[in-house]
Amino acid sequence: MAGRLITIEGIDGAGKSTLAAALEASLARAGTPVVLLREPGGVALSERLRTVVKDPELRVDPAAEALIYAAARAQLVAERLRPLLDEGRWVLLDRFVDSSLAYQGAGRGLGVDTVRAVNALATGGLAPDRTLLLRLDAVTGRARQGVRGEEADRLEREGDDFFATIAAAYDGLAAAEPERFRVLDATAGPDAVLAAALDALADLRT
Amino acid sequence: MAGRLITIEGIDGAGKSTLAAALEASLARAGTPVVLLREPGGVALSERLRTVVKDPELRVDPAAEALIYAAARAQLVAERLRPLLDEGRWVLLDRFVDSSLAYQGAGRGLGVDTVRAVNALATGGLAPDRTLLLRLDAVTGRARQGVRGEEADRLEREGDDFFATIAAAYDGLAAAEPERFRVLDATAGPDAVLAAALDALADLRT
Ligand SMILES: Nc1ncnc2c1ncn2[C@@H]1O[C@H](COP(=O)(O)OP(=O)(O)OP(=O)(O)O)[C@@H](O)[C@H]1O
Ligand SMILES: Nc1ncnc2c1ncn2[C@@H]1O[C@H](COP(=O)(O)OP(=O)(O)OP(=O)(O)O)[C@@H](O)[C@H]1O
Ligand SMILES: [Mg+2]
Ligand SMILES: [Mg+2]
Repeated sequence: MAGRLITIEGIDGAGKSTLAAALEASLARAGTPVVLLREPGGVALSERLRTVVKDPELRVDPAAEALIYAAARAQLVAERLRPLLDEGRWVLLDRFVDSSLAYQGAGRGLGVDTVRAVNALATGGLAPDRTLLLRLDAVTGRARQGVRGEEADRLEREGDDFFATIAAAYDGLAAAEPERFRVLDATAGPDAVLAAALDALADLRT
Repeated sequence: MAGRLITIEGIDGAGKSTLAAALEASLARAGTPVVLLREPGGVALSERLRTVVKDPELRVDPAAEALIYAAARAQLVAERLRPLLDEGRWVLLDRFVDSSLAYQGAGRGLGVDTVRAVNALATGGLAPDRTLLLRLDAVTGRARQGVRGEEADRLEREGDDFFATIAAAYDGLAAAEPERFRVLDATAGPDAVLAAALDALADLRT
């Protein structure tokens, strides 16, 4: 049986990693164990690329940024995702192609279609069975992250305008693919978000 | 005045770096100073990516490989190449997009057109004014490189079939763009190759 690929998306601070951990625990208790992975990362090459792309000391052109994320994704798909899905496993992924469409396509201004084309090489056409979009405004997202200052990575240092552009882009992506996307109100507390997420996955578990 | 971009291409061991150094010296003496750069590299991000992509310890999927080379190229173009060309400088580049078309497009089997599309994002349409293809068979190329064994990087460890495919792909690229490409016989000695290269650039210097 083919597995399921579920991705979690949203701006910085929307609560993706918090939801991912809660979902992993909750689905395991309910008899549906999932493998939890994050992007960029999950395999050796992609973790190396993660360090490079987040380094605040490096100059990274928007096109280079998009290509590095795509490269990390290509390796994750080939080395980890496809084998897991072929084994019939459920995989929960903290960010995937939609992050690149929103951040590099819209946020960096490269164009969503251009970034989508590059990612077609990276994924070989692999698409999520369901994508949970944690919908949150940029100001609340930033407030949740707290003041990271020197701790912030290269992308976290962007301003509210950047994240507002990304939030709007995510809305557009969700509207264009209502079957794949489920939009969750991320201003609700963690328990309410988890309950909504379980609900949004119910049809996949039957 | 806009500068000139000259690229040198060919399989491993064809003599690109040897020719690049000789050309740099010869053009400088003739009153046309050039900036010599190599790919992947030339700027901080691209040198970091070079280390990653050549690491023999890492698993690197073909799509990831193509995307990493494209990312390194994007940064070189944005941070170094475009500014130099805008200043009117001549730039001599040891490998460029054609290497990806030949190695990843043909050698790794991703398809030349797929790799070309990804590289359009990386270069923003910047194309060489002239490309010198050092034409050599795979067996002679390997013999020139000597037995590197443990010293060999991830790509150098490929077999003769891989390099024969690449040599054929280069021939196809040159045939498709006879105005941009000049094909030099790389079995000739270094002095003869340098003389042929100078000849192949003469029309750009008037
Ligand atoms: N539903 C929620 N309500 C209130 N606070 C939340 C909620 N979910 C997460 N948080 C808090 O918001 C902060 C950011 O959460 P989290 O790290 O999960 O976000 P994220 O989307 O993974 O961010 P990033 O994109 O930076 O990885 C954390 O302090 C977390 O405890
Ligand atoms: N025209 C030539 N005739 C004979 N030997 C040559 C010639 N050009 C270079 N060589 C020798 O061949 C070897 C490979 O040359 P070089 O390093 O310039 O190749 P390259 O194309 O840059 O290889 P790589 O793709 O591995 O960087 C060196 O030992 C060099 O001295
Ligand atoms: Mg997170
Ligand atoms: Mg060389």
